[in-house]
Amino acid sequence: MVQHVVTFGEIMMRLSTPGFARFSQATNLNITYGGGEANVAISLAYFNIPAAHVTRFPANDLGQAATALLRQHQVTTDHIIYGGDRLGLYFLETGAAARPSRVIYDRADSAFAELEPGMLNWEEILQNARWFHWTGITPAISEGAAQSCLEAVQVANKLGITVSADINYRKNLWQYGKKAYEVMPELVAGCDLIVSSIGDAADILQIKPAAEAADPFVSVGQQIMQQYPRIKKIVNTNRGSISASHNTLAGMMWNGQQLLQTPTHDMVPIVDRIGGGDAFMAGLIYGLLTYQNDQQALDFAVAASALKHTIEGDANLVTVAEVEPVMQGDSSGRLKR
Amino acid sequence: MVQHVVTFGEIMMRLSTPGFARFSQATNLNITYGGGEANVAISLAYFNIPAAHVTRFPANDLGQAATALLRQHQVTTDHIIYGGDRLGLYFLETGAAARPSRVIYDRADSAFAELEPGMLNWEEILQNARWFHWTGITPAISEGAAQSCLEAVQVANKLGITVSADINYRKNLWQYGKKAYEVMPELVAGCDLIVSSIGDAADILQIKPAAEAADPFVSVGQQIMQQYPRIKKIVNTNRGSISASHNTLAGMMWNGQQLLQTPTHDMVPIVDRIGGGDAFMAGLIYGLLTYQNDQQALDFAVAASALKHTIEGDANLVTVAEVEPVMQGDSSGRLKR
Amino acid sequence: MVQHVVTFGEIMMRLSTPGFARFSQATNLNITYGGGEANVAISLAYFNIPAAHVTRFPANDLGQAATALLRQHQVTTDHIIYGGDRLGLYFLETGAAARPSRVIYDRADSAFAELEPGMLNWEEILQNARWFHWTGITPAISEGAAQSCLEAVQVANKLGITVSADINYRKNLWQYGKKAYEVMPELVAGCDLIVSSIGDAADILQIKPAAEAADPFVSVGQQIMQQYPRIKKIVNTNRGSISASHNTLAGMMWNGQQLLQTPTHDMVPIVDRIGGGDAFMAGLIYGLLTYQNDQQALDFAVAASALKHTIEGDANLVTVAEVEPVMQGDSSGRLKR
Amino acid sequence: MVQHVVTFGEIMMRLSTPGFARFSQATNLNITYGGGEANVAISLAYFNIPAAHVTRFPANDLGQAATALLRQHQVTTDHIIYGGDRLGLYFLETGAAARPSRVIYDRADSAFAELEPGMLNWEEILQNARWFHWTGITPAISEGAAQSCLEAVQVANKLGITVSADINYRKNLWQYGKKAYEVMPELVAGCDLIVSSIGDAADILQIKPAAEAADPFVSVGQQIMQQYPRIKKIVNTNRGSISASHNTLAGMMWNGQQLLQTPTHDMVPIVDRIGGGDAFMAGLIYGLLTYQNDQQALDFAVAASALKHTIEGDANLVTVAEVEPVMQGDSSGRLKR
Amino acid sequence: MVQHVVTFGEIMMRLSTPGFARFSQATNLNITYGGGEANVAISLAYFNIPAAHVTRFPANDLGQAATALLRQHQVTTDHIIYGGDRLGLYFLETGAAARPSRVIYDRADSAFAELEPGMLNWEEILQNARWFHWTGITPAISEGAAQSCLEAVQVANKLGITVSADINYRKNLWQYGKKAYEVMPELVAGCDLIVSSIGDAADILQIKPAAEAADPFVSVGQQIMQQYPRIKKIVNTNRGSISASHNTLAGMMWNGQQLLQTPTHDMVPIVDRIGGGDAFMAGLIYGLLTYQNDQQALDFAVAASALKHTIEGDANLVTVAEVEPVMQGDSSGRLKR
Amino acid sequence: MVQHVVTFGEIMMRLSTPGFARFSQATNLNITYGGGEANVAISLAYFNIPAAHVTRFPANDLGQAATALLRQHQVTTDHIIYGGDRLGLYFLETGAAARPSRVIYDRADSAFAELEPGMLNWEEILQNARWFHWTGITPAISEGAAQSCLEAVQVANKLGITVSADINYRKNLWQYGKKAYEVMPELVAGCDLIVSSIGDAADILQIKPAAEAADPFVSVGQQIMQQYPRIKKIVNTNRGSISASHNTLAGMMWNGQQLLQTPTHDMVPIVDRIGGGDAFMAGLIYGLLTYQNDQQALDFAVAASALKHTIEGDANLVTVAEVEPVMQGDSSGRLKR
Repeated sequence: MVQHVVTFGEIMMRLSTPGFARFSQATNLNITYGGGEANVAISLAYFNIPAAHVTRFPANDLGQAATALLRQHQVTTDHIIYGGDRLGLYFLETGAAARPSRVIYDRADSAFAELEPGMLNWEEILQNARWFHWTGITPAISEGAAQSCLEAVQVANKLGITVSADINYRKNLWQYGKKAYEVMPELVAGCDLIVSSIGDAADILQIKPAAEAADPFVSVGQQIMQQYPRIKKIVNTNRGSISASHNTLAGMMWNGQQLLQTPTHDMVPIVDRIGGGDAFMAGLIYGLLTYQNDQQALDFAVAASALKHTIEGDANLVTVAEVEPVMQGDSSGRLKR
Repeated sequence: MVQHVVTFGEIMMRLSTPGFARFSQATNLNITYGGGEANVAISLAYFNIPAAHVTRFPANDLGQAATALLRQHQVTTDHIIYGGDRLGLYFLETGAAARPSRVIYDRADSAFAELEPGMLNWEEILQNARWFHWTGITPAISEGAAQSCLEAVQVANKLGITVSADINYRKNLWQYGKKAYEVMPELVAGCDLIVSSIGDAADILQIKPAAEAADPFVSVGQQIMQQYPRIKKIVNTNRGSISASHNTLAGMMWNGQQLLQTPTHDMVPIVDRIGGGDAFMAGLIYGLLTYQNDQQALDFAVAASALKHTIEGDANLVTVAEVEPVMQGDSSGRLKR
Repeated sequence: MVQHVVTFGEIMMRLSTPGFARFSQATNLNITYGGGEANVAISLAYFNIPAAHVTRFPANDLGQAATALLRQHQVTTDHIIYGGDRLGLYFLETGAAARPSRVIYDRADSAFAELEPGMLNWEEILQNARWFHWTGITPAISEGAAQSCLEAVQVANKLGITVSADINYRKNLWQYGKKAYEVMPELVAGCDLIVSSIGDAADILQIKPAAEAADPFVSVGQQIMQQYPRIKKIVNTNRGSISASHNTLAGMMWNGQQLLQTPTHDMVPIVDRIGGGDAFMAGLIYGLLTYQNDQQALDFAVAASALKHTIEGDANLVTVAEVEPVMQGDSSGRLKR
Repeated sequence: MVQHVVTFGEIMMRLSTPGFARFSQATNLNITYGGGEANVAISLAYFNIPAAHVTRFPANDLGQAATALLRQHQVTTDHIIYGGDRLGLYFLETGAAARPSRVIYDRADSAFAELEPGMLNWEEILQNARWFHWTGITPAISEGAAQSCLEAVQVANKLGITVSADINYRKNLWQYGKKAYEVMPELVAGCDLIVSSIGDAADILQIKPAAEAADPFVSVGQQIMQQYPRIKKIVNTNRGSISASHNTLAGMMWNGQQLLQTPTHDMVPIVDRIGGGDAFMAGLIYGLLTYQNDQQALDFAVAASALKHTIEGDANLVTVAEVEPVMQGDSSGRLKR
Repeated sequence: MVQHVVTFGEIMMRLSTPGFARFSQATNLNITYGGGEANVAISLAYFNIPAAHVTRFPANDLGQAATALLRQHQVTTDHIIYGGDRLGLYFLETGAAARPSRVIYDRADSAFAELEPGMLNWEEILQNARWFHWTGITPAISEGAAQSCLEAVQVANKLGITVSADINYRKNLWQYGKKAYEVMPELVAGCDLIVSSIGDAADILQIKPAAEAADPFVSVGQQIMQQYPRIKKIVNTNRGSISASHNTLAGMMWNGQQLLQTPTHDMVPIVDRIGGGDAFMAGLIYGLLTYQNDQQALDFAVAASALKHTIEGDANLVTVAEVEPVMQGDSSGRLKR
Repeated sequence: MVQHVVTFGEIMMRLSTPGFARFSQATNLNITYGGGEANVAISLAYFNIPAAHVTRFPANDLGQAATALLRQHQVTTDHIIYGGDRLGLYFLETGAAARPSRVIYDRADSAFAELEPGMLNWEEILQNARWFHWTGITPAISEGAAQSCLEAVQVANKLGITVSADINYRKNLWQYGKKAYEVMPELVAGCDLIVSSIGDAADILQIKPAAEAADPFVSVGQQIMQQYPRIKKIVNTNRGSISASHNTLAGMMWNGQQLLQTPTHDMVPIVDRIGGGDAFMAGLIYGLLTYQNDQQALDFAVAASALKHTIEGDANLVTVAEVEPVMQGDSSGRLKR
């Protein structure tokens, strides 16, 4: 496949209680498959950007079913490898109003966690790619996953492919004996664009806003760019949590020259909050590949993420034709006949 | 049946994705049967106004099932005729927040579209009726449907029965070679009451607000009444679309003397937006048959429509006892034990 | 079981239409089992307060299933007795926006209604209890239920156990020939704490606010305490009904010295409104058993009740760890990973 | 309606566990409405025999929903009356293999049980009927139901309408102080045709096969005809129970001259066993109204009943075109495209 | 893709009632997508034979969803074209015991039916294929479909690709003015292998068994091979219909030298009978591509078809590892842990 | 609790595809919780034998939900301990006819597998027990589980409690470095009764039938009793697999004097085959505790197991009153009203 986006990361089976049922009430669970990076690939496929996802699944029916979901959504699965013992899982209970949604992870010892360097042939995988995307979850899972990710970033850099990362910090991961700040800097150094909150920058890159900074996000962005000269854009979203059913969302980007900001989108009711950040990332990649300027790309990304909150499951199953009106300010949701 | 309302139009099988699922996600579809005019008949039956619906179904189990739905909701089905090849269908995906609901129609070549003049014995059908209702969808479907509708209006006029129409303009229909403005005027001329937006009046009747008009709706209403002297009331609703989950609704009527308006109803969350206009129409017919004055009828119609937005399916399955408190301003939704 | 709370009252099978379906649409019904007092016991069990519920079920599979639900939620069922003809039922249709939820009761002649004095050995049931809770529904069901309740209150008083009651008045009950104000005072006289609105106090205790009272609730509270010297706290909730999907809630308590009040909680969307008052009661008992002061207890109770509105079914399946942030003002519902 | 069949009896809400779930496992129940006599009416409507059902429902949404089910299946509901307290219910758990299906009745004090003589205007109800059908369940429910049934039989006899009864004996009913053999003979005396097993004849009519009889069914039939000269046909089915999932069925009739018998039908798997007898009865009425001879009527009745065992719910939703091949020996179930 | 099987034909949305519900009972329908030739492609993909399906879908969400189903099951969809008005549909009601399953087709004017010669670039589509498969349904749908099929067969013959056809005759199709025997011979002449019953041969090829033939199937086979010299194998299945829930199946092949036959498989219970013939065809193609001799291929084909009857939906989602034991006589269905 | 049965073993969450769906088709999974030994406890509770289950769950909502299922079915959960990382899982796909059911285990590193000696206080757990039951699965899971089991057997022997084991051999387990025949003999030596097939005896105890033996099962039994003098009864079931939907079952016991055998039960259709052996074990314990002789106990056990095959889920939710008729030869499954 020519000129496509490659994403890399774990995919879990997601088992969610129906409606607003609690774990203690459920007698069946809805299943789908999702992961931060695969969600980006699926969303890009819906935007008609060719996308391939790279991961490792167990060689059983559940690995096959997860693969099938990607194929169904038109993501290329040719580079997925099979082996190991189990598919990672997560259990989801959907909240409402003042009750948060809750996630129970069961991903230890997954086929992906047991990745080892050299298992994936990145030269071949990335040969025709134009963009490589990873997230901070992957290096947090296991040493092997971190090393595989580093291999990929290095090959991408060598091939001159754009590299993006959502570096988000998950404290509960990082159980294999290394700290995020020990592992991440080398990976981040290979990126052209990162999504990072101020908190993530502190936890992962040990960079904090200067005390006197006019805008703390700009301050962090400037320091990051200084230390990681490959990085050209630092992006973040600003989520307001009125309740589990009602959030607001805006995006911001420091591109070295300007602090760009988007209007704030009101998201109510929230149908499914999972994958909101991944939808933003996919929108951003689409936007940067398509539009003339960063502002449009950022506007598209936030609009895409806002729509994700209306979609069941992890992935943002919306088209460009659906995002564009929202990006242009029409959130009226008028019936389309 | 003595002194009942007769409605005429196509009924389709409605196949809707469960919850907020997209078409690409659904593995099953909820089914019901609906159509703009039949929805009016069902709602009237819930208001204890005897109602009969006239249509044409294929002579198969799906036509039988659609008939059964009408009977279940106490609509008289004695005048339905059977023949032709297929039942019209529509597929519905329910939106939320900034994501619109979407409809895919599959109604070409339906049993109803293949209606031909003379197939329906309107003298017999209307002999004891007191009201005949049709909509702008019917003449848009096919020449035969348009001619059947004209037969009905003419017989109704001859028998002195009140005729109402919701003349709404669906650009995507009107595929059989005639324009709306070629067909509709003769039909509208037989009406006592029409529901029409300013846009519909322009598209269908080629009447636009006078440039200097104080109120454009009144201006249109006055022109319509001048050209179509049988018409005594022109009615419309004003829908505000905050999102797919949150709309507002108000009604207005020009009765030749006054411009009547209703309070604005806040509808959040919207359970099912389809059939909101039909619920308004049924409420209006009920109100005009029951109340002493136009204002009450209009208030009842808007309250009925607001309640429809909480009902799954096309038809407004609410009683007068449920509409009246809302009409009188109580939208508190307090639990009834 | 040492030092537990004992609740007493009828449990019904609850048959609710799925989603927002009307009774006329449903082809299946969700079932659970609930009752005002049992809901308190289940909620307390989730708060890790040992709780036992006392009731009477028919000796059939439905009585067994209702018992199993209590056991599933860790409520002690050792004192439930079996006999009589039938399990009480109620049918529930969930409303939205301006359409209220509706309940159809079918509880006449239930096993519980046919309780007779002496059937329950209260000395044994209450021997290790520290709290006994009943509601105004029980004495309204039948003379036998009222007398059983009086037996319980009297034994509890003898054993020095705290007694609480939610005295709410249900006009549609009280069919067995006695009036609430004839039966309730003797029962209320045995209470240490009651939940009562101003209206309930008037209907049941024939106590009305003094005309000149600065605060009518305080006025009623003072009169009640005068007439019923055992009572030390009078509590109530203030519910605002914006729509069936959006309520507000605050609590108030007169403890003989102070009028305590809580912040107002915004509850939107409401997933299930049934059992909101019972969740408040359970929160109050938990709070009074746990916290140092009445204000905290009251704050906990209102926060617990607010969360109940997000839980499907009658009972409040939330833990203390979930209530405490809401009690402390965090209603943001942020995803818990 | 001219020349139709009238059936009379209680209709209950049926609440059945999904699949093969036990009562202790179910979290939802499928609902439909059924009763021995109404099942006959629905089946006749599917055979294009106009049918009207007479019963009494409570004046609430459940009574309306039960009425709607009859209307949906094209049964006339004009003579249903409304009042009383509750709708009778029954709970059903579907068995398999060696595990029987189980029914829990909850029908005491239903609107139908509280029928009183004079509530139904049988002269009007039966004025254009050609057949009246009742069963032994009705007089077992309450004295009022028995008396209403007797009124109906007497009016039918006066008007010269054919009367049929399935006299089956349900030991668990008959709780109102009278014995079946005290009440039934007067009712049976008004019948032209009865369905009765040898056991029913003994329990209800106190008639047993003569010790020396060549065929005990013929012996019973001859005695019944002697004592009840109006009766011209005595009919029965012979069910073989290999398991809950596999039964066999054959029919027999004594028509005063001949003992007619049908081939034995193999019924495996059984989808829903409830209403098998009612489907037989409807088939018999259809057959006797349509065919030239008793043998064909009996063959049709057994074939209809065999098909009922493949239909979910109480009523036999099959057409004549579906029964006829089975009646003629084609049970191959070959796909119809 | 190198050396794959190409199938060509219409895919319809299949809407089936849940469980054993009748059309008149269903309130929702399960959806999947299927068609005789696509079912072969999916089954081959499960057998790890690369397969591509060629068809035409409308350019809407339903066409996308149908495409996604093929991709999910690993069928190549690169050659599907989009256009036209609608997706063909069929409604399915599943029978049991003596009640047949029933299909209502609604496929007129589908995107596929409106295929026109030249729309598909067969040179490109077939360039690397080793097998092309079509069925008698395609030329029955429309003149354009028939001509497209002929184009494909001619290109396949030119490229030396094996051509197979299941020539089954569907009397209800063939509505476009030509008879099967006018259109089919030219198509059959391009085949290397056909599946044909004796009846199909008579209806389509006007070839009947010789009166004196020892084996009528061999007689037909010999005549076919004489008239259509390219054909090397004529294959058929022999289905015994004990009931809708219980069938038997055996296969037979005339390969010009021998009449091969398989053991008879007992299929009970039948989960889903649709696609049984397509599963046989896929098994036959797999077998002929894999095994050394025709007998094994035929044995595999029948075993595969037997397993299909246990799979929900149109397509046979079983692997070679699952078919082989059944082919070797192990139908014990012992639990695999 | 006085004089109860204690069972010990892992409980997994079971995730099963609905109906006959394959893993590749399912979009939701039914959940329940089961394990060989817990299934025995639940079944005994339904037989009114007090039962307690001992296991280890993770301290999260899934561990709570599994505990709740046991409590719901009246099993005592007081001795369950909490800790470790995860709940073991298994995925189940239900077969039919020639297609086997399939299980995918995901139980590595479960809370139970990480049991260590000393974690469970067996003196306290068993102090009032009369029977302790374990299976060969537990020592196969991990060294810690094996040692915990040995502790339990030794304490039981010391306290004089009857010990039973179903020693079944699961080749796929036993991954922790020891062989079954190294670990099991010491455990078996503490048993009073074992369930063992001839194959299990060979694999686990290295005992094979004598070449010249009249009955191989008796031969094995005699050798076992010689080597393990505590054992008084050796029991087995004989399952015939006609298909995944149709099995037969008989039981046999060598009690040192006699070879007892039961009639063969025909099980068709099989609703759920999982737990059939556990249901047998529970029936056997019940029978030996209740009946006068081994034959009755064995007959009860087989009848109980036959009924299990009609119950959804792992556990046998049937009562003694349901088993007894089947034990006495009535498998007619006649409807119970």
